[in-house]
Order: sequence, then C-alpha cells, then structure tokens
Amino acid sequence: MTATLWVVLILGLSTIRYGAASYEYQIKTIDVPIDHFTFTSEATFKLRYLINETYVQNDTNSPILFYAGNEGDIELFAQNTGFMWELAPKLKATLLFVEHRFYGHSMPFANASFESPKNLGYLTSEQALADFAFVLRTLNPPSDTKRSRPVIAFGGSYGGMLAAWIRIKYPHLVAGAIAASAPIRQFQGVTQCGIFNQILTSVYQVAYNEECTHNIRRSWSTLQNYSTSADGLRVLNEKFKFCTNLTKATDVTETFFDYLTDVYGNLAMINYPYASSFLAPVPAYPVREFCGRLDKNYTGTELLDHLQSALSIYYNFDGKATCLNINSSYDGSGIGDSGWDFQACTEMVMPMCADGVHDMFPAQPWNLQSYSDKCFKKYGVHPRPANALVNYGGEFLDASITNIVFSNGLLDPWSGGGVLRSSNDNIKIVLIPEGAHHIDLRASNANDPGSVTRARAVHVQNIQKWLAEYRKQHKVY
Amino acid sequence: MTATLWVVLILGLSTIRYGAASYEYQIKTIDVPIDHFTFTSEATFKLRYLINETYVQNDTNSPILFYAGNEGDIELFAQNTGFMWELAPKLKATLLFVEHRFYGHSMPFANASFESPKNLGYLTSEQALADFAFVLRTLNPPSDTKRSRPVIAFGGSYGGMLAAWIRIKYPHLVAGAIAASAPIRQFQGVTQCGIFNQILTSVYQVAYNEECTHNIRRSWSTLQNYSTSADGLRVLNEKFKFCTNLTKATDVTETFFDYLTDVYGNLAMINYPYASSFLAPVPAYPVREFCGRLDKNYTGTELLDHLQSALSIYYNFDGKATCLNINSSYDGSGIGDSGWDFQACTEMVMPMCADGVHDMFPAQPWNLQSYSDKCFKKYGVHPRPANALVNYGGEFLDASITNIVFSNGLLDPWSGGGVLRSSNDNIKIVLIPEGAHHIDLRASNANDPGSVTRARAVHVQNIQKWLAEYRKQHKVY
Repeated sequence: MTATLWVVLILGLSTIRYGAASYEYQIKTIDVPIDHFTFTSEATFKLRYLINETYVQNDTNSPILFYAGNEGDIELFAQNTGFMWELAPKLKATLLFVEHRFYGHSMPFANASFESPKNLGYLTSEQALADFAFVLRTLNPPSDTKRSRPVIAFGGSYGGMLAAWIRIKYPHLVAGAIAASAPIRQFQGVTQCGIFNQILTSVYQVAYNEECTHNIRRSWSTLQNYSTSADGLRVLNEKFKFCTNLTKATDVTETFFDYLTDVYGNLAMINYPYASSFLAPVPAYPVREFCGRLDKNYTGTELLDHLQSALSIYYNFDGKATCLNINSSYDGSGIGDSGWDFQACTEMVMPMCADGVHDMFPAQPWNLQSYSDKCFKKYGVHPRPANALVNYGGEFLDASITNIVFSNGLLDPWSGGGVLRSSNDNIKIVLIPEGAHHIDLRASNANDPGSVTRARAVHVQNIQKWLAEYRKQHKVY
Repeated sequence: MTATLWVVLILGLSTIRYGAASYEYQIKTIDVPIDHFTFTSEATFKLRYLINETYVQNDTNSPILFYAGNEGDIELFAQNTGFMWELAPKLKATLLFVEHRFYGHSMPFANASFESPKNLGYLTSEQALADFAFVLRTLNPPSDTKRSRPVIAFGGSYGGMLAAWIRIKYPHLVAGAIAASAPIRQFQGVTQCGIFNQILTSVYQVAYNEECTHNIRRSWSTLQNYSTSADGLRVLNEKFKFCTNLTKATDVTETFFDYLTDVYGNLAMINYPYASSFLAPVPAYPVREFCGRLDKNYTGTELLDHLQSALSIYYNFDGKATCLNINSSYDGSGIGDSGWDFQACTEMVMPMCADGVHDMFPAQPWNLQSYSDKCFKKYGVHPRPANALVNYGGEFLDASITNIVFSNGLLDPWSGGGVLRSSNDNIKIVLIPEGAHHIDLRASNANDPGSVTRARAVHVQNIQKWLAEYRKQHKVY
C-alpha cells in the first residue's frame, strides 16, 4: 500500500480503488448510543460504516453481507476481505462494513477517547456488538408483515469472534456467520496458554530449514548478552537502526523481545502464498523469506546481521523505512493496537505462555495475577478474564447455536484457540491445512492452495443454505 | 399474607414457612458488577438470591431450577411459584431464585439507588440478565471435562420475559425456559396498543353479568362530573375514604383513573380460582366478586357506593385497610412499582391505548411523543422504545431459538403481547383458556381448571426432554 493511497483513505473519499481490485463504497456515519446497556447518559457518537449497494436489484429479499469490524480502520478490513466483494455480485447483495468503536474514525469521545477508564471503559465487545445490532436494525428494519432482508455476517480474527457472537447473541438480526480464524476459545481455563507459540514455532520449523528456529532460539540469549553493557547496546543500535536508540537492558529484553514476538506471530498470520499488505507490505510466503535469511547456524554479530535482514522482510519490504520502530508491530497498518491493548487488559484476556522447549521463545509462564496488576497500573481497571466466557460461552456451544462456519487455517497460530470440532450439525467446521490467518476471506488468487479455494466453496454453500432457510421462514408467527 | 409474616421476610431469616406450603430457603448475597458491559468503574453491589439444596442427591448432573426475578422482592416470587417447589423433589433439583437489581433488597446504590439517571440508569433488563448469568456461572461453573449442571429458567410476566431472554442470550448457561405470561411482543409496532384493554374488558364482561362493564363505563363520566366542583370532590372523599383527600379535578381524572385502570388489570391478572395473596389478598375469582357488586344498572352516588364496595375486594379484602391509597395499586405487596415505572420509561415501553368502544375505558390514544416527554420530565432520560426489539428480537423468533415454552392464560390481558404461535418445533406454545396471569407457575390447587393442570404436565414433559438432550450433549467438543 502506498503512502499516497493512505492519504486518500484518511481523507475519506467516497470511492476507493485498491490495487488490482476495485472496491468502491460510500463512507457514512450513524449516531449510536455510547452506552447501549444503561440509561445513565443519552450521549451518542458517530460510528462509521462503508456501504456498496450497486449489486442490489429490485428485490427486498436480497442479502446484506455485513463485515463485523475489528481492531482497526474499517477500510483496512474492506480492502482485505475480497471474498465478500467477489460474492456480492453473485448474490446481488449489499456490502456493509461497520467500524468497531474506538478504532479507525469511530471515536466516541474524539481526542479524549483513550482516557481510561472514564472514556476508554466503553470499549468492550458487548458495546461493539450492540453498535452493530443498532446499525443493522436501523438500516434493515422489519416491516409489519415481512422480516428484514437476510444478513450474513463475516469477520476474521477478533472480527470473526464478533461475527460468531453476533449470530449467537442477535440471531434475529443475522441469519448466519462466517467466522474465519476466530479464537473464541483462547480464554482462561479453556485453551492451554502454550498452544499459540507451539503452532507458531512449527510454522517456522517447516518454512525453510531447521536452522531458522535454532537461530531464533539462540537470538534471545545473544540479544540479552548484548543488552548488559553499553558497548553491547551500541552494537545493537548500530545493527538494527532503531528509530529510538536502546539505552538499557529492558529496552532489549522487554520492548524488543515483545516486538520480535509480535512480528513472528504477525508473519505467520500473514504467511499468504502471494505478496500482500495487510499488517505490513510483505512478499509471498513471508515466513519462508524470513527463514531463508536465517538459513545457517549463525552466532554473535553474524546472527544479529541476519536477524536484522530477516526482520526487514516485515518492517521494510517496500524499502521505505528509514529506521526500525519497535514500539509497534502494526505501525501505519491501520490496526489500532492501543485499543486492543486495553481490550486485552479487560475482557479479551488471552493467556499466552512459552517454555522454550516446545516453542522457540524464552520461557515465560502465564501469570494472571501479574498480568492483572500490570493492567491495573496501565488503565486503572482489572481484567475480568471470565467475562467473554460468561457472555458468549466458549467451552461448550449449545445445540441451539446454528448457522456459523468456523474456519481455521492450521498454519495459523490462532487456530489453537479456534473451534475445531462440533457435535452440532448446524455449526460447520472448515479446516484449511495450508491456510494462514483468515486467508479464506481474502480475494481469490491464482496462488491459493486448493484447500483455500475449497473452503470458500463451502462458505458459499452454507450461505446459500442459510439464505434459503431464511426465506422459507419468511413469517415466523 | 399477614403483617407478622412480612416482618419475618424483611428480617431475612433463613427459613420461611408460608401458608399451607412450606418453602424453605437460605438467603444469600453475591457481589456483582454494577456495570457488566463497560470498564468505566469496578463498583459492585450485593445481589440477593434464595437457594434450597435439600433435594439434591449426590449427582453433579442434577438440575438447577432458576427463577429469573422480576419487578419485586424475590421472596414474593419464591412464595408464588409453587410449581417449582413441587418439581424440585421430583427432579432432585436445586431451587434458586435470584433477585432483580433495584428491587427487593438488591439496591446497587443503597438509599441513593433511585437517583435518576445517574444511578437508576443501571436498572435495565440487559444488566439484570448479566447479573443472572454472572450468578449462574459463579454457582455452577463448568469443569475442564464437564459441562455445568443443567439450568432450567422459570419466570412469570416480566420474569417470564427474562426467562425467555436468558435462554435466547445465554444458551450456554440455560438449557431451557418456561416463560409464563411473558409479553415479549408488547412493544411498539409489534402488538396493537388496544389489545390489553380489549382482553381485560372481555374478562369483566363474562365474569358475572353484563352490568359490570356498563357500570365501569359509566363510572368514568360520573367520577369526572364529581371532580369538577368542591362539593363533588367532598362526596368522593367521603365515599372512597382516600388516604389523602382529593383536592382537584386531576386528582380524580389522572391519579384515581390510573389507579382504577391498574386495579382492573391487576384483578384480571390474579383472577385465580382460589383465594390468593400475590398482588393483594383477594378471594377466589376476584373479578367475579368485584362484578358481583356492580351487578345492576347503578348511577350517581349509588354507583359510587357500589364501586367503592367492589374496589374493597382488591384493597381491603382482609379488612385491615383504614383508607384507600390510590398512589399505588401494589401497596405492601413487595412489587417495586417505582422501579418498574422507570423501566417502562426507558426500554420496557409497552404501548397501551383505549377507545371506549372495544373496551370499557375512557378513550386514550397512544402517543409516544407525549409519553416520551413525560418520561424525560420525570427521569431525565428519553425512552428507547426499540431497545428490547433490537436486543432480543420479538417480531420474529429465529429458528435457532429453542427450548422455550411460552404459556399464556387467555383470560390474562397480557396474553395479547405474548407468543401465541410458533413455526419452530422447538418453541412450544401452551394456551390456557381458563388461565389468568402465570397461574401455571403457582402451586397446584384442587380448584385448578383442567387446562392449568395439563399446562403443568406439558411443562414437565418439556423440561425432561431438555434435560435428556442436555445430558446427551454432555461434551460438545
């Protein structure tokens, strides 16, 4: 994605062309209550959504394909969910992408939105789902004699969780949901904390050759060694060209380590078989490219050089970065990581741990207490780690929950917290052995593996089944 | 219910015996968040619940019979839901009655709870359902390998709406729901505003003889005539012995008319075939008794005398009232009508109207705007009349909604807003032609009509089916 294009996006022009595909939409806003669940205040804010109605024919039954916006600028998701754009003309459907509150341009308290907890406290999945419900009901009201037009929800990652949850919590508003790479089981007591890093490690093990994970494993102690002296820090600053020089050991063992961990996860998530620019502009199979630069047994400064070169696949594939900003692994992507950090500190508490044995990371046990303390220090609130499970379930999906496809790429580290089995005929499981993070929602590509193409075909089948059912139930009473 | 017994209830002793039945429970409290849906504050309050575990055997699969507390002291509902008490020993079940926030003893802000909208704004059905979910999850957590014990929800009237809604919104926590006399369709644009008063009128038409509704119809203009002069007001004050003398016309045409309208509705609701003391102590078939005192064509002061005598069936059947308090038709019953008044002004906006032709009331059109203005003046908030429909559906129940029985007595004016038809095999409709308001949830009685006894048998069949299904689905993943 070019810088110029970003300017266009930010200016909010109503017609956007992106890359080879032409995704055109109107950008609109709607006033929604800041608090849907109490009457303590009547304040509203402007929630942004994107809409395309060019494919709809004169048919009040034509479906609405609705993307449940997640932690970023909604235009980012519109651009990276080509599957919906390919489907809309076939189904003569409206396309509707609704932004998640506190992300993109949907800030409930303008510049003061991130004052925590007074304002930021309204950033919760329940309020976001209620926003979506409010929008769907407003844009698609039922009449005295007729149900609303059928709505199919889509979402990837946290957006996939929201797509599944809106079908669970608002089944009268959403006929079915394609929940791609939705880790609704990545919560305390449900999924083991080490799974994510184990899957992640296995992706790097098979990407190029075995040296990759050996080098990554070695890099932690190497970096730590360099972090303990002024000379060592100088070397690191020279080698990596950080945007802000590292000046103390924890800059390495905390900030840089966290950045590296994030980047390794992100690279696996966007390990698509073609060049893409979702979280960052990267080549096809970026993990293979990354590992290709860590292909021999490197140590010392040689390891640093190769690590730096490998990292540039992620942060500087387009050659435009002048330095390495390790404060965010989502820099300039449109992902709102400060919003997500708050959500992770409140109800989206997803336990993560590493042992350095089954994974390539420094051993780091999961400790809810210290996590909670850290969150309280940062935001003035303690996490409620059971919240999502109380509200949405997750350990067990009731038999009444229907019309959801849970799709997971098995090369996606998030698949460990996904729904991989179902005893309910109406919950469909799609496994994509060669798939990274919600690749099935992306535009079709000549390089797509067969499993991705087949996943999309299953999605279409299910959507058509849901639409047929919905039309049959035209009147319920 | 005697005054002495009320003292016992208020003191919160843990063992209560009531009338002929012996309903014993422990009274407990649990700390729940005041706001389940935001992180703006970490404040909690003590929510009260009643529990009886004497029937449970050593079986981790034994069910929990859960009453979704509605607008009153939870002990009132425990005492008037004998069906659950009769069922518990048969199913070896735990009995659990959870109080609704802002009613009974569950006041989130102690004496300041009714400060609106700052504190009272937290009185919403969504927060109440989240309270229930929090309690169920806390008392009945799943383990690593096993689902929680199955929970069957019960509720009558607004409690029945909550029972249905908790099954819809939290299907992972509640296996099925008996929603008795639950008018989940009594909302703007779904049910005609006149239905309630039409059904109500028909109950009075057939209760004794036709003179009853003729007298009631005449009474409005008679009362109004007396309201226009000091002399007339004096006559009314003498005849009716109001606790506070009426001093101006609107005391009659607003306060007293509202009271009468409420009493006529209440009498129909509690028109049980045996003496009862749910909203007030009344004889068997209180509408018949009431109409028996309006059995001839009365006019003028004679009509006033007979109306006063008929009203005493409701407010003074036990002969203990020294005056007529027209400020509340729930005086001393344990029903929290000031809480409900707020809910009716926010999301429980149930349009009501009368035309004086199809019903026995003064013509009064439904006017959302003036209703809204009145609410804003009273509470500083405007109603959101679509809220319940957006959150819970209601016009159409999705096919995924299962395991709910909607039962309605056809003599209950609330049945007009109930679910009377279903095209979904898993939503069961039970109609009780001879039934008043949630009579099926009451203890069985020798005077129960056959349709009530049969309704309870259907409830038991459905509950057993849900329990069997739940146990079969023991592990979903």
